[in-house]
Formats: sequence, structure tokens, C-alpha cells
Amino acid sequence: MSEAIKELRKIAEKIYNDLTKGKIPSIELPARTKSNIVFDERYRVWKYGKQNITRSAVSLSGAYMLLRTMYVIDFIKEMIEQGKSSTLRELYYISEGWGDAKFSSQDESDKLAEDLEIITKKLREDFKLRPEEDGARVIGDIVIEEVTRKGEKRRIHCQDDVGDAGYSIPYNVEKEKLRFVEINADKVIAVETGGMFDRLVENRFDEKSNSILVHLKGQPARSTRRFIKRLNEELNLPVIVFTDGDPWSYRIYASVAYGAIKTAHISEY
Amino acid sequence: MSEAIKELRKIAEKIYNDLTKGKIPSIELPARTKSNIVFDERYRVWKYGKQNITRSAVSLSGAYMLLRTMYVIDFIKEMIEQGKSSTLRELYYISEGWGDAKFSSQDESDKLAEDLEIITKKLREDFKLRPEEDGARVIGDIVIEEVTRKGEKRRIHCQDDVGDAGYSIPYNVEKEKLRFVEINADKVIAVETGGMFDRLVENRFDEKSNSILVHLKGQPARSTRRFIKRLNEELNLPVIVFTDGDPWSYRIYASVAYGAIKTAHISEY
Repeated sequence: MSEAIKELRKIAEKIYNDLTKGKIPSIELPARTKSNIVFDERYRVWKYGKQNITRSAVSLSGAYMLLRTMYVIDFIKEMIEQGKSSTLRELYYISEGWGDAKFSSQDESDKLAEDLEIITKKLREDFKLRPEEDGARVIGDIVIEEVTRKGEKRRIHCQDDVGDAGYSIPYNVEKEKLRFVEINADKVIAVETGGMFDRLVENRFDEKSNSILVHLKGQPARSTRRFIKRLNEELNLPVIVFTDGDPWSYRIYASVAYGAIKTAHISEY
Repeated sequence: MSEAIKELRKIAEKIYNDLTKGKIPSIELPARTKSNIVFDERYRVWKYGKQNITRSAVSLSGAYMLLRTMYVIDFIKEMIEQGKSSTLRELYYISEGWGDAKFSSQDESDKLAEDLEIITKKLREDFKLRPEEDGARVIGDIVIEEVTRKGEKRRIHCQDDVGDAGYSIPYNVEKEKLRFVEINADKVIAVETGGMFDRLVENRFDEKSNSILVHLKGQPARSTRRFIKRLNEELNLPVIVFTDGDPWSYRIYASVAYGAIKTAHISEY
């Protein structure tokens, strides 16, 4: 049984035991609010503090939430066992068929998937859930080894083996999928806008400045941030964030550097 | 002098001559409205009809429009001469420094760039203007030869030489940039959503069905549509559009098959 299923099972068992003992079923998880965000001096990122909230069937909306949680756990279990995956969007649409357990918006189901990550200390990749979009682009003097869908290891040089649009980051950038094989660049430049990224590529700035250019696409996707973080930690490359310089840019910079409230459980990754 | 500059110069000359002759300056262009859209039976796409509109300095807003047109022509001329390019977004921001000739929104400057395409019968690629985004992804049994920014010809097999995120389509997909070298797939499947595209890739549907999978990203970008059109015309591949099946999907299908009102001047490309 996979680790993820084991952890999810614990949640279901807790509810089951509450019910058989005649107790009102409930689950606990960290509060995901600004007041429960603590700056971790060691990793220099934001993490959740000690405030917990309880979701209990004492209220009707709480009961619905637990029902949805059980359905989602069951759905994830089925996917893992069958070796399939779904997008977060598909999860939301599939929930339409769950009667009283259906979500009223995708925000709700996305948030529940994150809740499950926090409780189980697993990543949504372990749950076989993935975002709709990914595909931030990379260009620079680095060789990446990607394990393809066929299970083959493929080495891609992000200047010599790709077109001018660069190498597209897959949605899973963990070590079992991506390895950095060879690197000659000495820094990472994360670029906010596509226009500026393409301009730098056109002017061959990656070669002249010996950098890896990464397109953030505005607020970076998880996989993009994780990719940059790995370059920083495993290869000790400094990361420069190149933004438009407007107030929104501070937020983008901060999310690259320190993480976001919504995903403070993965800030250190 | 480039063809594009020659054509743009004609517009400026017309205005100049009007002014020196003491006439109120004006330019004519096809009306870009639904009532001026005609279905071309031969190419089976929508094109502009015979209705023209006149932009003249007889009104203040018309005069501003002509002023902006002159500034944009000058800007494009400078870019072509210096071998530079800009995004449509940059054009809009740069216009902020043009005093009375500045645009009030990016919609306005985007539309003017299209007007210039229609009048000159050139493409915005000839004007060195490009969209902010591109990067629709392709996976399938086809070898593409891309002329890179260094001027080298690079051959990329869109299954064996790319990661699981596929080959990213560059913003310029014309023949001087992209050639189809070798093809074994026998059809194109254009997929509306990223989730479904990734699912098909994961299940290796491109191999099993011998297709080229193209991600439309909703309403397709010009370069994506053009790429598909070239596959269809040059290689005689049938194109299947795989959508969600909701009303929006009809629009997406139609824009792939017949073109859009806003860009009816390039429907046949």
C-alpha cells in the first residue's frame, strides 16, 4: 500500500472510529490564515504556526465538508491503485456526480486537496492530482535528465536540444522525474513576463550572462518555484528575480523567495 | 528597404500628401464587423467583404487615431531597421511616452497593429511585433526543423527529443522559421484543455493512434492555428478538434476551422 494511501486511510479511520463510538466526527488541521503564518528563520520561508482548526459534523456545513473529504480520499485511493492521474479541474467536475458531497466551486475542491496535503504531509503529486497548466519555459546552459512517460531517461540540453521557445517544465519536477546532469551556467534569472523572457532569449542573454532563464508566467506555478528552488539548493546557484517593478512584482518576488500563505506547508521545498 | 517598410511608408505618404494639398487627411480600411464578413467558398474560411470605413481627421478622435498611426509606423520602421522586436504589450507601454498619441488601452494598440496588417497585407511578424504569450505544446511522430536564434537549423523529433511537456511552438511558425522534415503520424488532434492534453500524452495516445497532439489552450493563439493549418495543407493531414463539448467549444472549433472576425484578413493562412 502506498504511503499516501496509508496516511489518507488514517483520516478515514478517525472519522469511522468517532462514528462507531457515538462521538461527533471531526478532523483537525492547521489554520491557513495570515495570523497563523510564522517566518522560519532557518529556512527563511513562511510556515504554518501552531493554531489548529477543527472541522466537525456539529454543523451541517461541517458535516458536508467531512462527507466531501471522504469522497475525495476514496477517489484518490482509486486513482493510485489504478495508476491513473487527474487534474484538479477534473476532480471538481467528477464531484458533480457525488450528490450531497459535490463541491460548489473549484476553489473549494482545490483547497480540500491542499488540506489533505497538510494533514498527511504528502504532496498532491502523491495523490495523482495535478494542475491544469504547467509548462513554464527554461533556456540556459544546463543538461536535464527527464524520466519520460515510457520510463526512459532522456537528456536534454536546454540550449542545444530545444527550439527557441525553450524547454517546458513538466508538472512533476521531483527527483524521481527530473535530475540536473550537467551545468555550466552560474546563476538563475527568473523572469516575470513572457515578452521580456523572449526578448532575453532573442538577444542570447543566457549565453552572454551565463545564466539559466526561467519564465515565471506571473505568479509562478508550484512546479516552477520548486524547479528554481532545486537549482538553488542542489547546485548552489543564486537566483535573480527579474520583474516589471510594479507593486504586484513584490508579491511575485516574495512567493519565489518565501512561499505563499495558501501553500505554506510546502514553502521549504 | 523591407517590403513592410515600403507598405507602411505608403500610408504615411498618403497622409503627407493630403496635408500638403490642404485636404483633410484620411485613410481607408475594410470594416472589421460581423456585417462585413463573407464566407469564402473556395478556401472555406471567413474573410472581409467590400465595406470600407474611412478614418479622417475631420473629428478630433479621428485625428488622434491618425497621429497614433503615424507614431506606430515610425516605431515599427525603427525596429525593423535595428533588427529588434517588441511585444504588443511593450508597444502599448512605449506609447505612454508619445504625449497626445498615447493609447488609452492595449486593446486599442492591438487593434491598430491589426489594422496595419490589413492595409499593408503584411503580418505582424513582418512588423517585428509579437504576442506576449505563445508556447502551445505539440507531441507526436513528426520531425520539425527550426531555425534557431543563432541561425542554425535544428531538427527536433516531437516524441524522442522532447520532455513529456512536448515541443513548444515558437511565436513565428512561418516557413523561414519552421519546416516539417519527416512525418509518420497520419492526423492532427487539437486538444482544448491542458488537462486532457496531458492525459492523452500520459496514456501515449499519440503513439497508439499515430497522431500529432496539439494543445490549443482554449481559444488558440495565431501561431497555434497557423501551425495546425500548415500541417493540414502541406502534409494533407486531417485535423480533429477535441473539445469539452460545451457551447464555448463551438467557438473554439470554428476559430480553428474558419477563422475569427477580428482576424479575417489572415483566415486563409
